[in-house]
Amino acid sequence: MSTRLLTVAAAQLGPIPRDEGRGAALDRLIALMRAAAARRARLVVFPEGALTAFFPHWFMDEPAEIDAYFEKDMPNPDVQPLFNEARRLEIGFCLGYFELAREGDVVRHYNTSILVDERGGVVGQYRKIHLPGHAEHQPRQNFQNLEKRYFDVGDLGWPVWRAFGGNVGMMICNDRRWPEAYRVMGLQDVELVLLGYNTPYVSVNGLDEPPHLPMFHNLLSMQAGAYQNATWVVGVAKAGIEEGVHQIGGTCIISPLGEIVAQAATEGDELVCATLDLDLGLGQKRGSFRFDAHRRTEHYGLIVERTGAKGPKD
Amino acid sequence: MSTRLLTVAAAQLGPIPRDEGRGAALDRLIALMRAAAARRARLVVFPEGALTAFFPHWFMDEPAEIDAYFEKDMPNPDVQPLFNEARRLEIGFCLGYFELAREGDVVRHYNTSILVDERGGVVGQYRKIHLPGHAEHQPRQNFQNLEKRYFDVGDLGWPVWRAFGGNVGMMICNDRRWPEAYRVMGLQDVELVLLGYNTPYVSVNGLDEPPHLPMFHNLLSMQAGAYQNATWVVGVAKAGIEEGVHQIGGTCIISPLGEIVAQAATEGDELVCATLDLDLGLGQKRGSFRFDAHRRTEHYGLIVERTGAKGPKD
Repeated sequence: MSTRLLTVAAAQLGPIPRDEGRGAALDRLIALMRAAAARRARLVVFPEGALTAFFPHWFMDEPAEIDAYFEKDMPNPDVQPLFNEARRLEIGFCLGYFELAREGDVVRHYNTSILVDERGGVVGQYRKIHLPGHAEHQPRQNFQNLEKRYFDVGDLGWPVWRAFGGNVGMMICNDRRWPEAYRVMGLQDVELVLLGYNTPYVSVNGLDEPPHLPMFHNLLSMQAGAYQNATWVVGVAKAGIEEGVHQIGGTCIISPLGEIVAQAATEGDELVCATLDLDLGLGQKRGSFRFDAHRRTEHYGLIVERTGAKGPKD
Repeated sequence: MSTRLLTVAAAQLGPIPRDEGRGAALDRLIALMRAAAARRARLVVFPEGALTAFFPHWFMDEPAEIDAYFEKDMPNPDVQPLFNEARRLEIGFCLGYFELAREGDVVRHYNTSILVDERGGVVGQYRKIHLPGHAEHQPRQNFQNLEKRYFDVGDLGWPVWRAFGGNVGMMICNDRRWPEAYRVMGLQDVELVLLGYNTPYVSVNGLDEPPHLPMFHNLLSMQAGAYQNATWVVGVAKAGIEEGVHQIGGTCIISPLGEIVAQAATEGDELVCATLDLDLGLGQKRGSFRFDAHRRTEHYGLIVERTGAKGPKD
């Protein structure tokens, strides 16, 4: 048995109503954090945008109305109680939220997550890179997916940090469908990927997909990313029916061999815990996935040279 | 219903004994090809190294003994009957074999597959890029995985060809565990990936893995590659106990949504057929996986810049 054991809690959230203030969400996060501490977790992982409803699902035009969903500082008075409680419990956390960043005269809007250690220090920050959906209001859709309207593309890449005894990285929601995101972290020897998501059962692509597919694709993408990079993955949902949009649950903890070792059973607030052996991926990393022995970068050029697909006849 | 329908047969093979000549293997390939034609398939897919036993599982030192497993020309008198029968039946095929290539004064050894159209013309050739295993004899192992000894790394990339009414690419065995392989083809708008494999239940990594994992990883990798690139994948095994090494079956046809639509039930010679709608991936390619709208190549640089993994503290 390895000595690099880390007990992690994935804190799934049920829906957050649009008209609910930060306070009610904070109370739920703190309750989940306390339950995680009681399970002896050293790290609790909250979903994407854990402080408010997932507002890209509807159209807004007023900057002030949009900005009300964003945090101008982190921490700030609204979320300070979560930081305080974490320090008191000596538990680390990963928190998704919407970030308003002033860069000189420019204001940027990011879909962000931070990693906070057991002493309350911010270890790392990630800004979502793969923004799904569309930028224009599509009034004929039942709901919107306006991430391309409300958010700027993240500018921090996918860093990996030494934290909690291992190498830890973050991604957010749609990132998990893109093998490039895992691989950039895999090349930094990541051992634990933390990610939150808000994923509807029905897409706004105009696709007429069987309703089981979003859950299947959620798990498939995370399991493949975990296996192919020999890393633990903790995926955390905001689930249930939020403002008329039914979102998948499926919060889970996936081993470096790609298997689900713990999974949520509900679409509400629910804690999923596991004790992770951070050495479990070492066998793969020294064998089938010893990247320096097996990767052939001279044949991967198209991945960075070409953005869109171009068929052989084009 | 789309008009771009293609009936494909995946022709799984049971073991080929080491002392069996090409003739006996050819007879089996032809029998499977006839069965495929009887099912109205336009394309039959054979596994990796379909003409001989999978010799990287044992150590050899004599060049002549090694070269006996390689084809110096393709077609050649030994395999001509397969080409003849294909032309007679008006069926295309994908064939894995070991290729001895003379390039000027240099002799190269490749693990190769070719795609042959219904008129018997070679449409495309692929040489395996991700060679697994090791280059040195490891006498303490129960069997070897000497692909790095016997083969040169493929030098043709992953081209995609117009064939059989769609965009078709090939990979071989271990390639399927590497998302880069699918993505390079996805960026060429691939619609059908053909691949064969020889995959033991027990790895030579020195890993003590539960025996269900090789099949799980086989399917997981192919399903994720299919889904994330919205392409059909046909994976074909050489299965069963060959020269003391038990290889997985699991030959299957996977849809662009990542689901297995047909799968082998045995570890012997077995035909798995399905009629593929080559338009099935279009919804994803225009939506969630519209690469030009969503990929962020400026953040993928590490994938080509770095071969091996390097942790954040290194």
